[in-house]
Amino acid sequence: MPSSSLDYSKEPSRPQYELIVRKETPFNAEPRIQNLVEHYITPEKYMFVRSHGPVPTHLDESHIITVQGLADAKQFSVQQLKTQFEKAHVMMAMQCAGNRRDGLHRVKHTKGVIWGAAAVGNTTFAGCRLRDVLHAVGVVSYKNDLHVSFESVEQVITCEETACYGSSIPLCKALDEFGDVLLAYEMNGHTLTHDHGYPIRVVVPGYIGARSVKYLKSITVQDHESTSYFQQRDYKLLPAQVGTEQEAEEYWCKVPAIGEYNVQSFVCHPAHDSDKVVAEGTRLTAQGYALSGGGRSIQRVDVSNDNGDTWQVAELYQPSMSARAWGWCLWTIKNIEYKGYPIVSRAVDSAGNVQQEYPVWNYRGVLNNAWRTVNL
Amino acid sequence: MPSSSLDYSKEPSRPQYELIVRKETPFNAEPRIQNLVEHYITPEKYMFVRSHGPVPTHLDESHIITVQGLADAKQFSVQQLKTQFEKAHVMMAMQCAGNRRDGLHRVKHTKGVIWGAAAVGNTTFAGCRLRDVLHAVGVVSYKNDLHVSFESVEQVITCEETACYGSSIPLCKALDEFGDVLLAYEMNGHTLTHDHGYPIRVVVPGYIGARSVKYLKSITVQDHESTSYFQQRDYKLLPAQVGTEQEAEEYWCKVPAIGEYNVQSFVCHPAHDSDKVVAEGTRLTAQGYALSGGGRSIQRVDVSNDNGDTWQVAELYQPSMSARAWGWCLWTIKNIEYKGYPIVSRAVDSAGNVQQEYPVWNYRGVLNNAWRTVNL
Repeated sequence: MPSSSLDYSKEPSRPQYELIVRKETPFNAEPRIQNLVEHYITPEKYMFVRSHGPVPTHLDESHIITVQGLADAKQFSVQQLKTQFEKAHVMMAMQCAGNRRDGLHRVKHTKGVIWGAAAVGNTTFAGCRLRDVLHAVGVVSYKNDLHVSFESVEQVITCEETACYGSSIPLCKALDEFGDVLLAYEMNGHTLTHDHGYPIRVVVPGYIGARSVKYLKSITVQDHESTSYFQQRDYKLLPAQVGTEQEAEEYWCKVPAIGEYNVQSFVCHPAHDSDKVVAEGTRLTAQGYALSGGGRSIQRVDVSNDNGDTWQVAELYQPSMSARAWGWCLWTIKNIEYKGYPIVSRAVDSAGNVQQEYPVWNYRGVLNNAWRTVNL
Repeated sequence: MPSSSLDYSKEPSRPQYELIVRKETPFNAEPRIQNLVEHYITPEKYMFVRSHGPVPTHLDESHIITVQGLADAKQFSVQQLKTQFEKAHVMMAMQCAGNRRDGLHRVKHTKGVIWGAAAVGNTTFAGCRLRDVLHAVGVVSYKNDLHVSFESVEQVITCEETACYGSSIPLCKALDEFGDVLLAYEMNGHTLTHDHGYPIRVVVPGYIGARSVKYLKSITVQDHESTSYFQQRDYKLLPAQVGTEQEAEEYWCKVPAIGEYNVQSFVCHPAHDSDKVVAEGTRLTAQGYALSGGGRSIQRVDVSNDNGDTWQVAELYQPSMSARAWGWCLWTIKNIEYKGYPIVSRAVDSAGNVQQEYPVWNYRGVLNNAWRTVNL
């Protein structure tokens, strides 16, 4: 087996987590859904971990990041990034593209880690601005269709070969003065831990987590997207009729890589699986999260206790710390009667996008944002 | 009647239009839906016109625009804007927030002009960058929560009082180097016509048309949104339970003004009302438009001929002229069988947002993007 060629013997210890492990190697874990609404800023113990290979625990602040492309190549140690560039902060939701994959997987087999609805969290990051670093190496002006490619130290197995994890974002996102893309070295006020990218990671607010490359090794400005498997043949929203690896083969190159994520919400309390222990007629407080990609704020969360026939408007908690809404929204609805149906939520974002009723199934099981949780 | 206090005697003549008039005073008109897919760049004769009052036909290029706010106030004539600032171009869809209001109005009475699905078009604009003008008056740095307010010469009646049309956008959109907000003096390569804002208008790509203020009189940088009726008490997406003017009263201040629009598509050919003259079993070519707000491109358009049971993927035509997809997408599907149901389309944008099945009704009838056209 090719995965045996990767060494998982040096994984960090994880006694502090209160997570459900979805996969041991690479390590993938998410919290219980109820825990997500306990804090607006998700504590690390409740923050999902998404690895694609063994965690490179040997790195420290002497680690060198190469910045190259249109301008002269330059190298910076993490220590230099910390001292030579202004420290910036961003509070942002991080969401895996596969969050809620289980809802699609129940419809039909999907490829990927079967995440529940907790592959999402909301934390603060601190680091230097990618924009400042690009300016420092001479990338100041914008040209259409350029990309910033990130390569990681993280070793992965794809197509039976060993490679480094990689991904890219459009240069216009990287240079956007309101884009808030950081090379982060802190999360929630503390030095990044191994599982979250120590010593340095990219964070791309408003984009799927796959673009926030951990254990960053190089940054390349180029005229094409990253050629990595994870940009080219994964994290894409395939049409519903593509149902096998063979059928996917001809579609990967036709379908764009996902950047921003879609409008999303979920009921965290009562958790869907706890509904059965509540008696019909009980009045309760429902709580959940909502978020949308690209800095779009949540405008409204509708909640239904009668299978979608009627909807009530939830109270939102969504403090803004930036020009764009990178953080998630927590919502609450009090005194709602449990009528025997799962309580469901439907968010509307600032652009008027709304979660659809039924999932649009896709082979990779990404971007599921249906408000109805299908039980087959 | 208060509207009698506005003078509609100086309206421009409109012999060139091939439009269906939805309202005479103020003049509101849209093309036949089939015409929209004849050209990727919508000719003016097929471009919808949305007026809020009498067209100020007395203006010319000596018209003065005042720019004021945080910096010193300055004044520019249209002629000066043309000669003192670089000329920039944008190709963009312009869509009224009320496009497809008829679909909501069939569910329940809405307030507003009953537009069909052709209150949208795709044109090119040329003008100076709002960003450059703001820089020229000293607004260069960004602060959170500032807004750029636009006031028009156009006289309107709101709440039984005469006022000037006005609106605002966030300063971060105005200053965004990829935001492409122009003070435009040309459309489709020709000087703006009276109905489209001569001598100068704002165009805000990716935002509802209401923010692209015509007959611009002043630009103000301020710490709050425009206080205009059209920013504060209109063009808002109210919750479904708000069904009357009285109920709306308490909601206007709680609901954000719409900026970006949501993911949208529509079948233009065959037009829904022409379906009845096609025999079941006929194979035909279906065509339509698709677009999304905020520069999000269209990733896929699914088309169904069997009431949404199965979907086929359409071919897309969506040339990019900019870092962000401001233009619309025209789509085609060949050799699709007419099975007695209206052919419907469902677009997915680059953030994975998808049109929902049923309309979420709202009192003002805005942002209807349901793929199902409800006939009651």
